[in-house]
Amino acid sequence: MTIETRAEIRLALPSQGRLAEPSLELLAHSGLPVLKPNPRQYRAEIPNLPGLTVLFQRPGDIVVSVREGSVDFGITGWDVVSERRGADHKLLVIHPALGFGHCSLNVIVPEGWDNVNRMEDLVSLQSELGRPLRVSTKFPSLTQAYCAEHNLPEVELIFAEGTLEIAPTIGYADLIVDLVSTGTTLRDNRLKTLSDGLILSSQACLIANRHSLKSSPITLGVARQLLEFIVAHLRATENVSIFANMRGDDPEGIAERMFTRSVIGGLQGPTLSPVVTRQGEKWYAAHLIVRRDQLSQAITELRQVGGSGVVVTPVIYIFEEEPKEYRDMLALLEG
Amino acid sequence: MTIETRAEIRLALPSQGRLAEPSLELLAHSGLPVLKPNPRQYRAEIPNLPGLTVLFQRPGDIVVSVREGSVDFGITGWDVVSERRGADHKLLVIHPALGFGHCSLNVIVPEGWDNVNRMEDLVSLQSELGRPLRVSTKFPSLTQAYCAEHNLPEVELIFAEGTLEIAPTIGYADLIVDLVSTGTTLRDNRLKTLSDGLILSSQACLIANRHSLKSSPITLGVARQLLEFIVAHLRATENVSIFANMRGDDPEGIAERMFTRSVIGGLQGPTLSPVVTRQGEKWYAAHLIVRRDQLSQAITELRQVGGSGVVVTPVIYIFEEEPKEYRDMLALLEG
Amino acid sequence: MTIETRAEIRLALPSQGRLAEPSLELLAHSGLPVLKPNPRQYRAEIPNLPGLTVLFQRPGDIVVSVREGSVDFGITGWDVVSERRGADHKLLVIHPALGFGHCSLNVIVPEGWDNVNRMEDLVSLQSELGRPLRVSTKFPSLTQAYCAEHNLPEVELIFAEGTLEIAPTIGYADLIVDLVSTGTTLRDNRLKTLSDGLILSSQACLIANRHSLKSSPITLGVARQLLEFIVAHLRATENVSIFANMRGDDPEGIAERMFTRSVIGGLQGPTLSPVVTRQGEKWYAAHLIVRRDQLSQAITELRQVGGSGVVVTPVIYIFEEEPKEYRDMLALLEG
Amino acid sequence: MTIETRAEIRLALPSQGRLAEPSLELLAHSGLPVLKPNPRQYRAEIPNLPGLTVLFQRPGDIVVSVREGSVDFGITGWDVVSERRGADHKLLVIHPALGFGHCSLNVIVPEGWDNVNRMEDLVSLQSELGRPLRVSTKFPSLTQAYCAEHNLPEVELIFAEGTLEIAPTIGYADLIVDLVSTGTTLRDNRLKTLSDGLILSSQACLIANRHSLKSSPITLGVARQLLEFIVAHLRATENVSIFANMRGDDPEGIAERMFTRSVIGGLQGPTLSPVVTRQGEKWYAAHLIVRRDQLSQAITELRQVGGSGVVVTPVIYIFEEEPKEYRDMLALLEG
Amino acid sequence: MTIETRAEIRLALPSQGRLAEPSLELLAHSGLPVLKPNPRQYRAEIPNLPGLTVLFQRPGDIVVSVREGSVDFGITGWDVVSERRGADHKLLVIHPALGFGHCSLNVIVPEGWDNVNRMEDLVSLQSELGRPLRVSTKFPSLTQAYCAEHNLPEVELIFAEGTLEIAPTIGYADLIVDLVSTGTTLRDNRLKTLSDGLILSSQACLIANRHSLKSSPITLGVARQLLEFIVAHLRATENVSIFANMRGDDPEGIAERMFTRSVIGGLQGPTLSPVVTRQGEKWYAAHLIVRRDQLSQAITELRQVGGSGVVVTPVIYIFEEEPKEYRDMLALLEG
Amino acid sequence: MTIETRAEIRLALPSQGRLAEPSLELLAHSGLPVLKPNPRQYRAEIPNLPGLTVLFQRPGDIVVSVREGSVDFGITGWDVVSERRGADHKLLVIHPALGFGHCSLNVIVPEGWDNVNRMEDLVSLQSELGRPLRVSTKFPSLTQAYCAEHNLPEVELIFAEGTLEIAPTIGYADLIVDLVSTGTTLRDNRLKTLSDGLILSSQACLIANRHSLKSSPITLGVARQLLEFIVAHLRATENVSIFANMRGDDPEGIAERMFTRSVIGGLQGPTLSPVVTRQGEKWYAAHLIVRRDQLSQAITELRQVGGSGVVVTPVIYIFEEEPKEYRDMLALLEG
Repeated sequence: MTIETRAEIRLALPSQGRLAEPSLELLAHSGLPVLKPNPRQYRAEIPNLPGLTVLFQRPGDIVVSVREGSVDFGITGWDVVSERRGADHKLLVIHPALGFGHCSLNVIVPEGWDNVNRMEDLVSLQSELGRPLRVSTKFPSLTQAYCAEHNLPEVELIFAEGTLEIAPTIGYADLIVDLVSTGTTLRDNRLKTLSDGLILSSQACLIANRHSLKSSPITLGVARQLLEFIVAHLRATENVSIFANMRGDDPEGIAERMFTRSVIGGLQGPTLSPVVTRQGEKWYAAHLIVRRDQLSQAITELRQVGGSGVVVTPVIYIFEEEPKEYRDMLALLEG
Repeated sequence: MTIETRAEIRLALPSQGRLAEPSLELLAHSGLPVLKPNPRQYRAEIPNLPGLTVLFQRPGDIVVSVREGSVDFGITGWDVVSERRGADHKLLVIHPALGFGHCSLNVIVPEGWDNVNRMEDLVSLQSELGRPLRVSTKFPSLTQAYCAEHNLPEVELIFAEGTLEIAPTIGYADLIVDLVSTGTTLRDNRLKTLSDGLILSSQACLIANRHSLKSSPITLGVARQLLEFIVAHLRATENVSIFANMRGDDPEGIAERMFTRSVIGGLQGPTLSPVVTRQGEKWYAAHLIVRRDQLSQAITELRQVGGSGVVVTPVIYIFEEEPKEYRDMLALLEG
Repeated sequence: MTIETRAEIRLALPSQGRLAEPSLELLAHSGLPVLKPNPRQYRAEIPNLPGLTVLFQRPGDIVVSVREGSVDFGITGWDVVSERRGADHKLLVIHPALGFGHCSLNVIVPEGWDNVNRMEDLVSLQSELGRPLRVSTKFPSLTQAYCAEHNLPEVELIFAEGTLEIAPTIGYADLIVDLVSTGTTLRDNRLKTLSDGLILSSQACLIANRHSLKSSPITLGVARQLLEFIVAHLRATENVSIFANMRGDDPEGIAERMFTRSVIGGLQGPTLSPVVTRQGEKWYAAHLIVRRDQLSQAITELRQVGGSGVVVTPVIYIFEEEPKEYRDMLALLEG
Repeated sequence: MTIETRAEIRLALPSQGRLAEPSLELLAHSGLPVLKPNPRQYRAEIPNLPGLTVLFQRPGDIVVSVREGSVDFGITGWDVVSERRGADHKLLVIHPALGFGHCSLNVIVPEGWDNVNRMEDLVSLQSELGRPLRVSTKFPSLTQAYCAEHNLPEVELIFAEGTLEIAPTIGYADLIVDLVSTGTTLRDNRLKTLSDGLILSSQACLIANRHSLKSSPITLGVARQLLEFIVAHLRATENVSIFANMRGDDPEGIAERMFTRSVIGGLQGPTLSPVVTRQGEKWYAAHLIVRRDQLSQAITELRQVGGSGVVVTPVIYIFEEEPKEYRDMLALLEG
Repeated sequence: MTIETRAEIRLALPSQGRLAEPSLELLAHSGLPVLKPNPRQYRAEIPNLPGLTVLFQRPGDIVVSVREGSVDFGITGWDVVSERRGADHKLLVIHPALGFGHCSLNVIVPEGWDNVNRMEDLVSLQSELGRPLRVSTKFPSLTQAYCAEHNLPEVELIFAEGTLEIAPTIGYADLIVDLVSTGTTLRDNRLKTLSDGLILSSQACLIANRHSLKSSPITLGVARQLLEFIVAHLRATENVSIFANMRGDDPEGIAERMFTRSVIGGLQGPTLSPVVTRQGEKWYAAHLIVRRDQLSQAITELRQVGGSGVVVTPVIYIFEEEPKEYRDMLALLEG
Repeated sequence: MTIETRAEIRLALPSQGRLAEPSLELLAHSGLPVLKPNPRQYRAEIPNLPGLTVLFQRPGDIVVSVREGSVDFGITGWDVVSERRGADHKLLVIHPALGFGHCSLNVIVPEGWDNVNRMEDLVSLQSELGRPLRVSTKFPSLTQAYCAEHNLPEVELIFAEGTLEIAPTIGYADLIVDLVSTGTTLRDNRLKTLSDGLILSSQACLIANRHSLKSSPITLGVARQLLEFIVAHLRATENVSIFANMRGDDPEGIAERMFTRSVIGGLQGPTLSPVVTRQGEKWYAAHLIVRRDQLSQAITELRQVGGSGVVVTPVIYIFEEEPKEYRDMLALLEG
């Protein structure tokens, strides 16, 4: 009888909650769709990454799994990574900002505490009460550290399974430390944040087990492929492809006019191909990539330099050089 | 104690019903996705239009809100706009045809009324009955006007909260004036429309408060941006982008052959770029935009003039000159 | 600014999970239906117990609330009571067996561990491995104690947010200590229990805060009323009322024959009332209460002693003397 | 071609909303279960009342249907009856209180209007504003009348299709008149009622068309049967049946002791039947009906006078003399 | 390697469709609630019948299972029993009418076939068409037999997986033989039944394997217990228990008056017990059982003979002598 | 009275099951979205193919409909086509592989049959048992044929309505022949496939009625249009479009370097258009189409020959010559 060792490479994804669906979408859009043969199962595969097994776990459990090495890669929230990653450097964050699951961890008190608006007011309150403040949270480690930094080393931490927001109302605790995504729930429960009570800003991130990466070139290859496609996809979401018809005698003249503008006169230059017209006017088709949030400005600039008939088309990936995130990871492995 | 005045610019969207989902999709596809932080809330934002607040209301309430100025812009149905816009020109329709939510307002009578097929038959029926016809509708104003035009000035209008279709069957009213989208519900309830009983054809439209547009350049700027992107998106939905490999010695000869065809020899001309082949045959890649409903014809024509390997790709926006709808709106503001 | 003190008496009920619905049903059937004015709210009332507020919390949080006194009464599982009640006697269990929510807390190992079937086999396994066994559980306190009793004082406890059953498979832990209700989930996950690994058998129970009961006669009165009605309801669920027509000349003779039988000749005797017949035969109607699980036997016995036309009717409550559970509680308060 | 006249007798029930389900339950518990052959249909039958057709309509439409005579009977809310019954006495309320659907119609203002707490404060506010207050409501008739009574004859009424609660916040109206069932929605939207702003308390009621009752003895018979069973069911819901064993030498002595108590010594007296015991002690079984809300007191009193083994059983109907509601209806028809 | 034989006794219940839920309810109301430990499983238990295993299968598969003996008892529809029971007498119907799942198997033709209203019209139609009629059905055996009896031995049977009602409309078949429960679906699809086209009236029934009953006394005991409780429950659903206060000097006089009435003067006579009153008037409480559908008449009769305060209470079971269905089954086993 | 003949062209789609949703998606992505005016109806339209009616039927009924000619085209599974197409060549398969709905039909036996792993082992088992093996399946025709081919001509086929997987466990049959999509259900039910027990691999296919195609040029035209767009769409799903910036002095030199690589040096050659840069370096934009599963390799190769800034964009259709599937169909019609 032995305890099983494993050959497969593993990626853990959130099994439920606000990170679950976007994690699957990120991978699908990155060309790595997850195939879950059985909805009742906690296991799945990524056909484009054979040899990799996907597991579904709660976000907090993913951190523990990756740190302890029962799983090689994980997508989870920066909040639980910070709470549970430990001090032993076994867990590497190989992409810190996957662009979804934004939230923040805050110190939250009853709306009716008129004189409590900053962390220092909690110190006064505690001395007034003559007993440690009672704080309910699911992030005891981060809470303890943050309170200690703000001269409250002795707060009493109270664990709760369920919704924290009602704790102050029913006297379960004096205040709470909890995740906030929109503020609405706070107002509904007559709670407020402190002006300097932001403990942490979080979004989804990609983590890996240091030992797995160091000891297995195959795992390292998977890390590279994940990063290549995720980075190329994230870059693509911020850009569009533009074809515009430009009046002008020759490509150089058209390009010259475009270079005078800030958005369409970007880093490199446009591709310019001749348009053949019935009447023989001189037109060229310019092809360029612009940032999605500068599209409106790009249209204006193209019109200014004689462009018309601007056709915007989608992009799926933009691959530049080998991704910076991959080089950073290699450096961390050396360190 | 004061009643709050507001600084924010507001856009009202339908909170439920057949216009709700397509309105959100139109904005998302127009590059203006709506972010609803809390599903229970009636408020949302469009991150790409900072300063604009989205409110969710019933379609009929949107008309009132825009007319009275508590909201600046609204997407709602032409049917409720016509019923409730009033005669005071406070409400402007700045885009009349957003391409979804098609339906028509019709005069509807029991299938069993064999001799009633036109509006004039209602006049006879009423005189036969010796009392005003009883009409149940949610559009009293349009109904009253339409009946008066057709020599029925004295019909009795009966309001109903719920489904109108059963009203004739249970004797709640003699006939109804109601929206029809597919005709199925009519047949299910053994009802029929009159051949000249079409009061109004409706689809979703974009409305604005005249005073807001006149008094605030910022609101005017929002109007322009909404129109630019909506118009460019709607135009894009009707077109595709085509790349075809064309055999030929030079671009001019290829273009000449294309100009002999109706669809691919369109207004301007194709972009033609050289293809470099292993064996040195002369090929050019033609890039052109064609209407989606002419795609089948375009493929046939391209094959006729030596094209092959036709690749069709999607387009997101097509920006032409400043949109006609924007110029129309400026004219209305002057008027 | 002060932290609110409360006047209301509070009863906490499970907000979700397998205890939630049956708790509400128990109270409804006990004549104490819970009125929840707003489905989104965590607060409710029992109109028949004015002055009492119902709160909805997670089962584990209920134990803490009652122990700390922010809540006076709670219905929750014996499993979480045992884990979290602490050693300070602040929490009293005033009804230990409410008849629903049965489950057991077990030591669970992989099905494939062929040589591990008893707790003592874990001791061998641990020494073989040369490191502490890693146990994942949501009941650390009970697990620690049980392992220590079985010569495993040094196991490593691993907390998990989510489902425990997959922990051994993915290497998150070696074994688990978890609740089992039917065994199916175990088989699905290829796990098994140990023959002497039953830590605890659990069902729902009613708990109270000792201090609240001692200091407030009103709270004591609520306790009495809860116990009176719950006990009378639970007794009623086990019994039915029977009316049977018995042929016989006089009540005494009929009763005599009934006393010869085991079920229908129960403790006291039957009520016997005369039936007036057309033909003047002598019949009496016997009314008696029998246990539901002895109903089949009672029918047989009644037929044996001349009974026929047996009509079974439901009972809602059976009140005997002041309930034993109430007297036990008073004794505990003295202790 | 003719407009159909009908032979069937009709009962309209609420098709949706908070009255729909309880209306069906009331009829089922009254021995008149509704059989809906097709969930998509608006028609149903009550097999125990052949000749009667059930229609499903919105609550407000039911009032109009019954008043106008397209339907003979209806179950709907007192609120919409009051708003829409008209002054022509065509509609009779034949049972005013069916025991469900309680709510109240209230004048509601923003929580932040610190100086507005009574109707008279609205008068001051209006004069301060220098314009009529703008009131959004679905009860224009009742609102108009109530405001006029309180010196506000000139308020501007604003119709809304959707939720009223957000109207003050977004400036759609100054205040609202709306139904309140629990107050929670008000607090969520930062609104409050006025201390003298209760316009109406409402619950479900049974209405009928006067002309139908006067002209058709069959319809009158249906009215009687509906009232007999509804009244007997409603009375039953408030009572339980009790069997208690009473120690005592003779029925008269036991009854004498019971007559000294307030609850168990009720109007008439108990039925007392002899219990035959093994040892020959003298016991009698007392059978009595007590009010459900006096059950606790009844148990106490029975114990005081020597009772034990109290068995409580349910009752389905209690029929007294011909129901008062039926006699009242006959009087109204005469009037 | 062997093919397993089984020890357990098995009862098969419908796994889905309109018989599934009522089958579980029948058993629950008969004191035999089914406990399904895992919603995903096809197996369950009846705690009050230890040794019995419940399996869930499709109604048609239940007939095959019982006939072939892989299951001992089944609840399913008479329709599929008739279609599939075969001619070998292996399957016994031990209760033919469980009171739910009523439907009928009918010959159904297009509404537009004006000249086809009886089976004989199909004969004419077929000779007119000059080819066999094409009949789509899920009951080929019953259809074949019924058509042959009506001079249509040669119809072409066409099997269909899905909904049959659209088959005539789309030309998949000329007519259909299908189950009808309410007629609404027929009208929706413009179909009609033939006046003599009723092949079979069906409801749920209890079936058993003859060999199992003959060879195992334990199985026979289970059959008896199922029948005892089901019969007693079905009888109870049709009756209520009544207590009425009767004015009168002695029981005999009261009974005499009751015997003059048709409903309350039923087979045997009432139980009459003295009521002890404050003022000493002579009252007796009458207890009797009446049929639910005669309740209204019973109330009227009681009032006529001096009764008042009529309390109606529910009954759960009525056990008479050993059930006829059990004796019938024993006779069949002999046969 | 006549039996209706039809003018419309019909396409049948699966009404439910795993083929239903993907069939609609295939058509939508092929530019032929289905418009279902009424969710309750079995009829729909494809606006881009006027004159075509869509019907929804069960997959097996579609085969019968197309074979018998009540429907012209169908999308359904190859499994049911093989089982039911008959031997009369009335049904043509015009596209055999639509790329979804993959499954296989397998011979499946209990996991515990250790000695049964191949078809020949079934022969031994049957002779050992001394009776025909009992096989439950929904594919009797294919099963019969496959067993006969493997020396089991006499197996007993047992029809089942419901789930087959439990049949061996409960003794309903010895083994089953069933569809398998993932294997999970087999393991859950402790079943296994035989190594040579694969009867058929299936996916969705497009079928047509031979007679309809031969007799109607319009139907033939619909077939061509369906095939053109489906084939072009399926080809597009396997490819992406790439734009890459290539450093180099002239197009020929760049192309030369690309031709040395396996993926990017594909059949024809790249389109190369000049990029105009600020500093005058020589860059060209290469446009090429690569297979989606070779994208990673293409990126690597482009980097190797001096490419950078690789932008990947989607393709909707790729039209080559007239589709092979259409020519194959014409050949079959001749045959």
